[in-house]
Amino acid sequence: MRFVELADHSCISNLMPEINSLHALIAKRWSPRAFTSQPVDPATLRTLFDAARWAFSSNNEQPWRFVVGTKDNPEEFARVLDVLVPGNQAWAKTAYVLGVSFGKKTFSYNGSPDRFGLHDAGAALANLAIQATAMGLHVHAMGGFDAVRARTEFGVPDDFEAGAAFAIGYLDGPDTPPAPRTRKPLEEFLFGTEWGKPLF
Amino acid sequence: MRFVELADHSCISNLMPEINSLHALIAKRWSPRAFTSQPVDPATLRTLFDAARWAFSSNNEQPWRFVVGTKDNPEEFARVLDVLVPGNQAWAKTAYVLGVSFGKKTFSYNGSPDRFGLHDAGAALANLAIQATAMGLHVHAMGGFDAVRARTEFGVPDDFEAGAAFAIGYLDGPDTPPAPRTRKPLEEFLFGTEWGKPLF
Repeated sequence: MRFVELADHSCISNLMPEINSLHALIAKRWSPRAFTSQPVDPATLRTLFDAARWAFSSNNEQPWRFVVGTKDNPEEFARVLDVLVPGNQAWAKTAYVLGVSFGKKTFSYNGSPDRFGLHDAGAALANLAIQATAMGLHVHAMGGFDAVRARTEFGVPDDFEAGAAFAIGYLDGPDTPPAPRTRKPLEEFLFGTEWGKPLF
Repeated sequence: MRFVELADHSCISNLMPEINSLHALIAKRWSPRAFTSQPVDPATLRTLFDAARWAFSSNNEQPWRFVVGTKDNPEEFARVLDVLVPGNQAWAKTAYVLGVSFGKKTFSYNGSPDRFGLHDAGAALANLAIQATAMGLHVHAMGGFDAVRARTEFGVPDDFEAGAAFAIGYLDGPDTPPAPRTRKPLEEFLFGTEWGKPLF
């Protein structure tokens, strides 16, 4: 296990000049469609997946698995590219790294159903995206891929279900989304204990 | 929409003295079982859920919803506490904020199935946990609650499924887990395009 020095904390608080402001790594993250040819070196890639593994998971099952191809090995890269839908292939081919996440459907300690497989895989990929942002990389998660073909192509056991595909690389172009990112206002998804009634 | 100033970037790079080190906000996050009675003020809570909403989601559906009770309203707090399993109630009652996440099962634009409802809800909760860490708060996600009772108790529509319960508050005690956090080594979950064969 590697931990960064806790001396960093002073800097974390510097990052929060307004106590209630959104953290830069969350505010800045976005999903581009153009990457440069700059390689993502193995040490960098390891750190990204190190971030993924420190996500929370139900019963610390760590149900996430990742199948990854990089341009270090063009054949493996092509195999992942091949399961994407054509609309995603068109731009994702510029990324140096492509992958697909999976979630385990059972708890390993007793074989009972784990309904958090994809939930926790999503948390792990979110951690990875935050770490990537901190390292000057960008990640684009994709729902558009052939999950059935991915199973057979990668030899996925029955006990796992496909999560999301993703592209990782260095951004080509300015670090601003082509259109402003939009999200629902809080009152549409944050309720008190009566569904639909905003907490605030 | 609120964005922090991009001047923060200089500090982000200060946070990365070793280019391949895990970011402090990811390395430091852990799930405690004891919180102080210090209130989490509404502005802080809003910022946490602001972080959640900037997560990625399939087709930008933002399928996450959150039901939340705080000790500002003891009745609502009790209603959320009540759906937790007794083992979680025992410690979660010390948190100032309790909640349950939900994921939408269909895409809103055409009603077709969205299999990323819980995946993306997990990503949103991971973002929230990172933001909480940056603000000196702690989050503990829980699988142990009665998802069926939560549906009826909160009036959850059929089109949503329960995700995770969670506690949010200020830590009571030293900021170190009672036991070292453990995770699988990379080679157990990061594969090349042949399942089970480590990428590295």
